[in-house]
Amino acid sequence: MSNIWVKNFAKRTERMQSSAIRELLKISNMPGVISFAGGLPSPDVFPIERFIEASETVLRQHGDQALQYGTTEGYLPLRQFICDYSAKYGIHVQPENVLITNGSQQALDLIGKVFIDLGDPVLVESPTYIGAIQAWKVYGANFVTVETDKDGMIPESLEAQMHHKPKLAYLLPNFQNPMGTTLPLERREQILKICCEHGVPIIEDDPYGKLRYEGKHIPTVTKLDADICNNGPKKYQGNVIYLSTFSKTLVPGLRLAWAIAPEEIIMKLVQAKQGSDLHTSTFNQYLAHEVCKDDFLDRHIPVIREIYKKRRDLMMELIDELFPSDVHYVRPAGGLFLWVTVPESLNTEELLSIAVDHKVAYVPGSPFHTDGRGKNTMRMNFSNASEEGIRLGMQRLSEVLKTALK
Amino acid sequence: MSNIWVKNFAKRTERMQSSAIRELLKISNMPGVISFAGGLPSPDVFPIERFIEASETVLRQHGDQALQYGTTEGYLPLRQFICDYSAKYGIHVQPENVLITNGSQQALDLIGKVFIDLGDPVLVESPTYIGAIQAWKVYGANFVTVETDKDGMIPESLEAQMHHKPKLAYLLPNFQNPMGTTLPLERREQILKICCEHGVPIIEDDPYGKLRYEGKHIPTVTKLDADICNNGPKKYQGNVIYLSTFSKTLVPGLRLAWAIAPEEIIMKLVQAKQGSDLHTSTFNQYLAHEVCKDDFLDRHIPVIREIYKKRRDLMMELIDELFPSDVHYVRPAGGLFLWVTVPESLNTEELLSIAVDHKVAYVPGSPFHTDGRGKNTMRMNFSNASEEGIRLGMQRLSEVLKTALK
Repeated sequence: MSNIWVKNFAKRTERMQSSAIRELLKISNMPGVISFAGGLPSPDVFPIERFIEASETVLRQHGDQALQYGTTEGYLPLRQFICDYSAKYGIHVQPENVLITNGSQQALDLIGKVFIDLGDPVLVESPTYIGAIQAWKVYGANFVTVETDKDGMIPESLEAQMHHKPKLAYLLPNFQNPMGTTLPLERREQILKICCEHGVPIIEDDPYGKLRYEGKHIPTVTKLDADICNNGPKKYQGNVIYLSTFSKTLVPGLRLAWAIAPEEIIMKLVQAKQGSDLHTSTFNQYLAHEVCKDDFLDRHIPVIREIYKKRRDLMMELIDELFPSDVHYVRPAGGLFLWVTVPESLNTEELLSIAVDHKVAYVPGSPFHTDGRGKNTMRMNFSNASEEGIRLGMQRLSEVLKTALK
Repeated sequence: MSNIWVKNFAKRTERMQSSAIRELLKISNMPGVISFAGGLPSPDVFPIERFIEASETVLRQHGDQALQYGTTEGYLPLRQFICDYSAKYGIHVQPENVLITNGSQQALDLIGKVFIDLGDPVLVESPTYIGAIQAWKVYGANFVTVETDKDGMIPESLEAQMHHKPKLAYLLPNFQNPMGTTLPLERREQILKICCEHGVPIIEDDPYGKLRYEGKHIPTVTKLDADICNNGPKKYQGNVIYLSTFSKTLVPGLRLAWAIAPEEIIMKLVQAKQGSDLHTSTFNQYLAHEVCKDDFLDRHIPVIREIYKKRRDLMMELIDELFPSDVHYVRPAGGLFLWVTVPESLNTEELLSIAVDHKVAYVPGSPFHTDGRGKNTMRMNFSNASEEGIRLGMQRLSEVLKTALK
C-alpha cells in the first residue's frame, strides 16, 4: 500500500488491536464448529413474531418519524420506558438521566472519549470485560488491576490501588464477564464507600443483571448510591454511570443499550455522541419501545432464564463428568459464561487452534487480563449452542484437553 | 454537581461543543415552526410500504441472523450491493473495500480516530460540513481552510496551503454542504493531482451525489483516482476514502452509510469501529439490503429528484420575489441546501432568535466556518418542508429580513 496512508496514521492506532472475540466470531461462523466463544444469545429466544407485528405497527403509525433523523439523547418514550423499567429495580431516574447508545460498547467508547487522557489510570477487575479494555486503550488508559476472588472484586485490593489516583473504577457486579462472579451486597457497599471517599466515579456495567438462575437479586451499586445521594426530585445526581442493554434480554441485532448518569454527565456524553454518530437508529428505538410495551420483558425474561439455566447446568455437569479432574470452574449464578481454569501446563491460546481443528471453540482467558495473566484460563459461553450442541462440543473439548495433558 | 465528575473530564472535552444544527433540530420540532434548518429528507419520499414488506420478509426468512450480533465490517450482501451500486458510477471495488457505518458521521469519527493527533493540520473547504468539524475537533484537528468560489474549492488555494503538510484533505465535490456548489471535472482532476503530489489522502464526502436536478453527473474524485491507481484485480488501492449514505436516498432513521477505501485502511477503520460500537445494526443492514434489491434505488431516486427539484425551484423563486434585493444565493445543481448571503450589516446568528419568534428557522452560516467568517450567511434546507410550508416560511423570513434591514 502506498505510504500516503500509513505515514498519516494517528499515534493512537498503535494501541488499536482486533479483538480476539471478534476474530473468533468469524471462526464460530464456520460450518460444523460448535462455538462457546462469543457472548451470543440463543436465537431460540428471539421473539420474532412480536418483532414482525411491532415493525408493521411502528411503520404504519409512525413511519414518518421512525425513519427520520432523531435526537442524540434518544427517543423520549424509550428513555421514559427505561426509567420505568429501572424503577422496578429501585433505580429512580428521569429521562434526562438516560442516553440511548449503540450497544454498551458505544457507551464505553463515549466514556473513554469524555474521561480518559493518555496515561490516565483506570481501575478494572482482573480479569475484566475485553470490550472495555479495547475501548479505553485507544484513549490511552493505563489499567490498574484490582484482585478478585470467587465473590468478584476484593475491596481491600481496591483500597490498596487508590494511591494511583484513578480516573474511573470499572465494575461488573452481576455474573461478571468473563468470570461469572457476583459481588455480594456487603462488597458493593464497601466498594461504593471506598470510591466515594477517594472521589473516584464508578462505571457499573450490568448487561446480564436480569439473567439470574439462582439466588436473589442484589441491589445495583447505582441503586445503593442513589439511595444515599438523591434528595427529593429523583433526578439522579450520584457517583455512578450505570450501563445496561437490550442485547441480552431482547436481541443484540438492534444495537440498543443505555447509560444512566447525572444529567450533566449525560449532556457531556451527548456532545461526544453528536460527533461520533449523531444518534442511534430512530427505527430501532421505536421498534424496541413497541416490542417492550405492556411489560413484555417481564414475561419474556423468565423464558430466557429457563432455557439458559438448563444450558448452564448441562455445561457444568459435562465438565464434572468429562473434563480432567484438575480443571476447575466458577459456578455462575447468572449471565452467559463459565470461567474455566485448566492446569498451568496448558496455554489456552495455543490450545485454541487444536480445538478449532476438532470443531469446537472458546475464548482464551488471557486477553481479558491487562497484566498478562490468565494463560491457563478460558471463557465458555453456554447461552448460544443448543443442548445437543453443548453435549457434542463438550465431548470434543474434553478430548482436546485430555490429549494435551497426556 | 459533585466535583467527582468534572475534575475527571478528559482534556479533549474542552474541544467538544453541541452542534448548532442539533440544537436547532429541537427548535424545528416545536409546533408551528417551519424549519429550513436541518438536513432532513422529506418523509413524503419514505417508501414505507416497501419497508413494511421488507421487515416481514427479513424477519421471517432471516430473523435468527438479522437480530443476532454481526461482524464489524458489515453484512456481506449489503457490502456487495454497495460494490455493485458503485460500479454503476464507475467505482469498481470489492467488499473488502467497504465498511458499513452508523451514518456518515460515524465514518468521519472513525477517520478522526485513525488519522488525527492533537494539532494535526486538516484541509477543509471554507465553509465546510459542520459534522466533520465537530468530529475532528475532538481529536485535535487544526483546520486549514481552502478558499472557495461558485465552483467550490479553488485548486490554487489548495496548492498554497500544502506547506502546512496536512494529514488529510476533506472535500464535498457534489452540491457541497453548506454552499451547494459543485466541483467541475477539471478542478477534481487538479485537486487529485495536487493532493497526490504532496502525499495528502483525500476524504471525498458524497451524501447527495445522486440528487442532481440539472446538468450531467460528474465522475467522483474516487473514480478518477481509481482509474489511475487500479491495476487488474479491481481492489481499490488508491488515495481517497469515499463516503456515502442511505440517509438521503432511502431514509436517515436506519443510520446506514458506508466508506470505500483501500483494504488496509478499511481494516484499520474496522479496528477503530470494534472499540467504538462492535458493529452496525444487523437488522437495519438486512432491511436496507431487502428494500434496495431489484434496483429499487434506480426507480426511487428519480421520484426524490422530482420533488426536491420543485422545492428548490420554488425556494429560489421566492427569494427572487420576496427577499430584499441585496440578498444573494448560490444556485445548487442538486442536494438539499441553498446558501444565502445577506447584507454585511446583519448577523444571522443574532437574527435567528427573531426568526424563531416569527416561527421560521434556518442554520446560521458561521458554524460552518473554522475561521470565524460567514456571520452574514445562512443555510436553508429545501427538501423537508412542503411547498405550502416553503411559501409560508419564506414569507415569514422575508419579513424578518426586511425589518432587520430597516
